[in-house]
Amino acid sequence: MRLRLDLSYDGTSFSGWATQPELRTVQGELQHALATVLRLPQVPVTCAGRTDTGVHARGQVVHLDVEEQRLAAATGRSTDPPVDSLVRRVNRLLPPDIRVRAGREAPSGFDARFSATWRRYVYRIADAPPTADPLLRGHVLWWPRPLDDAAMNESAPALLGEHDFAAFCRHREGATTIRELLELRWQRSPLGILEATVRADAFCHHMVRSLMGCLLAVGEGRRTPDWPAQVLTAGERDSAVLVVPAHGLTLEEVAYPSEGDVAARAGQTRVVRTRG
Amino acid sequence: MRLRLDLSYDGTSFSGWATQPELRTVQGELQHALATVLRLPQVPVTCAGRTDTGVHARGQVVHLDVEEQRLAAATGRSTDPPVDSLVRRVNRLLPPDIRVRAGREAPSGFDARFSATWRRYVYRIADAPPTADPLLRGHVLWWPRPLDDAAMNESAPALLGEHDFAAFCRHREGATTIRELLELRWQRSPLGILEATVRADAFCHHMVRSLMGCLLAVGEGRRTPDWPAQVLTAGERDSAVLVVPAHGLTLEEVAYPSEGDVAARAGQTRVVRTRG
Repeated sequence: MRLRLDLSYDGTSFSGWATQPELRTVQGELQHALATVLRLPQVPVTCAGRTDTGVHARGQVVHLDVEEQRLAAATGRSTDPPVDSLVRRVNRLLPPDIRVRAGREAPSGFDARFSATWRRYVYRIADAPPTADPLLRGHVLWWPRPLDDAAMNESAPALLGEHDFAAFCRHREGATTIRELLELRWQRSPLGILEATVRADAFCHHMVRSLMGCLLAVGEGRRTPDWPAQVLTAGERDSAVLVVPAHGLTLEEVAYPSEGDVAARAGQTRVVRTRG
Repeated sequence: MRLRLDLSYDGTSFSGWATQPELRTVQGELQHALATVLRLPQVPVTCAGRTDTGVHARGQVVHLDVEEQRLAAATGRSTDPPVDSLVRRVNRLLPPDIRVRAGREAPSGFDARFSATWRRYVYRIADAPPTADPLLRGHVLWWPRPLDDAAMNESAPALLGEHDFAAFCRHREGATTIRELLELRWQRSPLGILEATVRADAFCHHMVRSLMGCLLAVGEGRRTPDWPAQVLTAGERDSAVLVVPAHGLTLEEVAYPSEGDVAARAGQTRVVRTRG
């Protein structure tokens, strides 16, 4: 039986997603809580987007496999559906910087990573003193000068679509850097906070934070709006592109195809990611 | 010259507003930063609402007096208006859990405490697992069971208006507990968080948190909607009324009359608060 769990976490006190010996990670804490509730030595989970140290999530998705009997035994005396009971018990064990928002049985062939059709991140910046809210400082970057969101939006269209994003990615041997950028848009929240929505089929390492750094140079007026497209075309990392701090970034949503199509999508993605 | 400063702070790591020896307080940190920038041994400030340990603010207001020459000398080489320059320098010294949002010269007769016409607080509760957002956990109370906001709103009208709120206040010798409650209303934010807006001419100690505790008993179905009015009428503290945790409470706004009326309002308030 495959389960899907939807997670939120505050990345501040984690060394990123992936389990690492001796370090506090989101995967490590979640797997530990699941193993305790299910009374198993370990419960491996697979996530949709492996977030870096300091990056937050409101819409992370994971899958895990569990025998139906084991789940029933671990949550037995409750009258609730077993998955609801599992979520409640896991949340009781988890520290307050991780919450399981929801849990359910996944459709056949579902894979949290490979079935996903897109991931949506939001990067948040307070660029004026009145918007620098201490209550939100853990997930909003404070920038000391005003940013021109219209200029940054001018740069966006040339980056959309399928491109080799090598200029914005940390190189990894044998991995493609071809991605499809579906949305890139700056807007001000009702409270005046600048929010960039960045949506793509998938992201390579550091891609969102490098794109943000590139656009910030435009927003500050240090570069013209056509510069990001030039960086993209050059195809290699440019030392003038800053990788912005992790704490402004939140994984907000991961999308999946309808139930019947998740297995097909997973097969297709596995092929695409290993090409080129 | 009297200045008005508007402040935000995350109350988590403060022992409340008021200066106390050996403890970290908002007033203490702010006065220390002001004294450093103005090069004075001390700079007393007066606030609109002395928040308790753990209570936050987005709209706290303070006043302070400074000689014009002293302000000019401390901020001299900047081409900005001296108050803007003061705010920028103070923010550079303040820890990230306090921000000065804005500063300006106050109208004649302005008193942050006594000129205020009303204070607006918001109490925030996540009463369902999907709304328990780790990124907001510092200023939103997590409640383990769903609350009936319609029932809590039914209780509100009977509490509005001028009453002796002794039943909801920590007794202080010689101080009146008569207050005018102007607004008390529960609504759900777009994210599903339950928010109570509580607005009054002023509040006595623990008043918002006791009112919330009383309404929560209604929201949970342990009491009927007419119970809060009965508690009010009884006029003394009821051990069944819980004082809810401080961290869900934020002082959002303080209102003042138009420029010409601040002095008159201050005089009037001083009389009212000492009656009874």
